Amino acid sequence: MQALVFDGDVKLVDLPVPAPQAGEALLRVRVAGICGTDLHISQGYADFRGVLGHEFVADVVAAPEPQWLGRRVVGEINLPCGTCARCQAGQPRHCAARRVLGIRGKDGCLAEFVTLPLANLQVVPDTVPDAFAVFTEPLAAALEILEQVHICPSSRVLIIGDGRLGLLIALVLRLLGCDLHLVGRHPRNLDFIAARGVMVHPADGFAQDGFEVVIEATGNPAGWQTALQAVRPRGTIVLKSTYPGRGEANPTALVLPEVTVVGSRCGPFAPALRLLARRLINPKKLISRVYPLAQAPEALAYAGQRGVLKVLVEMPLYESDVSVV
Amino acid sequence: MQALVFDGDVKLVDLPVPAPQAGEALLRVRVAGICGTDLHISQGYADFRGVLGHEFVADVVAAPEPQWLGRRVVGEINLPCGTCARCQAGQPRHCAARRVLGIRGKDGCLAEFVTLPLANLQVVPDTVPDAFAVFTEPLAAALEILEQVHICPSSRVLIIGDGRLGLLIALVLRLLGCDLHLVGRHPRNLDFIAARGVMVHPADGFAQDGFEVVIEATGNPAGWQTALQAVRPRGTIVLKSTYPGRGEANPTALVLPEVTVVGSRCGPFAPALRLLARRLINPKKLISRVYPLAQAPEALAYAGQRGVLKVLVEMPLYESDVSVV
Repeated sequence: MQALVFDGDVKLVDLPVPAPQAGEALLRVRVAGICGTDLHISQGYADFRGVLGHEFVADVVAAPEPQWLGRRVVGEINLPCGTCARCQAGQPRHCAARRVLGIRGKDGCLAEFVTLPLANLQVVPDTVPDAFAVFTEPLAAALEILEQVHICPSSRVLIIGDGRLGLLIALVLRLLGCDLHLVGRHPRNLDFIAARGVMVHPADGFAQDGFEVVIEATGNPAGWQTALQAVRPRGTIVLKSTYPGRGEANPTALVLPEVTVVGSRCGPFAPALRLLARRLINPKKLISRVYPLAQAPEALAYAGQRGVLKVLVEMPLYESDVSVV
Repeated sequence: MQALVFDGDVKLVDLPVPAPQAGEALLRVRVAGICGTDLHISQGYADFRGVLGHEFVADVVAAPEPQWLGRRVVGEINLPCGTCARCQAGQPRHCAARRVLGIRGKDGCLAEFVTLPLANLQVVPDTVPDAFAVFTEPLAAALEILEQVHICPSSRVLIIGDGRLGLLIALVLRLLGCDLHLVGRHPRNLDFIAARGVMVHPADGFAQDGFEVVIEATGNPAGWQTALQAVRPRGTIVLKSTYPGRGEANPTALVLPEVTVVGSRCGPFAPALRLLARRLINPKKLISRVYPLAQAPEALAYAGQRGVLKVLVEMPLYESDVSVV
């Protein structure tokens, strides 16, 4: 099969179809998405080598339990050991020995086939098209904010960043009715979210403060300073950005204003699928381009350009519904 | 002016147009809504005597600050004293000396005119029609649940009651993506909310349990037992029902399962207006009937029938958009 691999360089290579391990299903990928993390990995983040990609919708083509065969699924990307203290304590996503699809010790889904444990799979409701289902993983990551922090309808909230993740977070938080603001650098992306009831601010000259909750989703170190300036005393900063290298932040800046910082990573798939099925999240306008797998390196390069939103990769011989939703 | 009054009996009477007090505006009511509380007041709840009604959208026809003239507004129903310890502590809605529109010491809005302090008013965005704006107050009351309790996207939540308030709460909570269930007695109301992605259960024979959060919105004492049976150990019951007379509940039933109970009343208007302006809450199908003010007693009687949802009252000489939204 063809697969997009990072081995120090990004390249399309021919690999054998992966063999499912005990408890795993073999999945034929329909559509995969490119995430900021994939770009960061290709710049050295997380020291990963192997097939890239962790956002997908796929068909089950082999499984140890026959009721899964032929089901259209998405998949939780963390593969915990299941036996350590953290797994036993109900925190499998924080298992120290976990592998992570396309990120740590497990080949990803920017390929024709991928394997995952059955326990990781969730069936996609028939009413959710592939082009929406492929957003389940990043949408779950956006929802994780609401798992961790109690944001009230009356809260004044700021999102920093108008990229893929920042806009998806905005689509989620606008559902709460909160007084929602977003600061960003790309007029088209700001217009998109302003039309959906979010107050937008160009990053140049932005100087508002007093926000109860500030969500940093820029994917670069500059967001930290904006967050510190914007959060109110005793407020909360939610950190979504991960990036390679060292930032220059002094955490003691949190002490005098008594600010809380919450790191936030992966989230729950079931509510993401519910919001997609209820058509409360419509990510169609977040899709910038769709590439065939044969052009996956170009897709990755394009996803790294300024202001580009979600780039999808369609698998060969698969006629997706990406263009018709 | 004509007004719907409760003085031991419900009747339509002629009253002088009310004179605004210091800081108050005179409002010409466009449309008013009938709430379960109005029905309970007419059965003796809260010992109120005067003009009924606390849900409205109106035009400002006189005001101490000229910029308010002609604005279309909704209004917060609590009139705090502003000087007591609770008011000073930032809890004006819990001022012990407060008056409450159409509920305590202040004539209500089921009348051609009503007065309210400017501080209570909120301008309705032009994009929100009257028939939606009149839902601001009950929608705010539904949102108060999210001000008080941290409900996560992954939470399993039960609403008890498929009446006016129960369905409005369901329209709010479905936006969170949570695993949302509703138990009720009216097939049409259950069908309405099931079509919006909520799992529904007929009340007869309902025996599910293990819900993290249970919201009691039946408006009658039987809901308490259902809530106790359905909530999981260490879960939370949110009580929205108010009713006249004595219930037969033993609060010590909360001790062994370590259940938390949260009483919940009025909520914030601003997020309610934001959700209406974003078209994330569409209450159109919650309107059962619209009556002219001259038939307000019939409107109140109809609102008390089983399974009837929101009954609106249109003011004379006012051509509302109720029928066209």
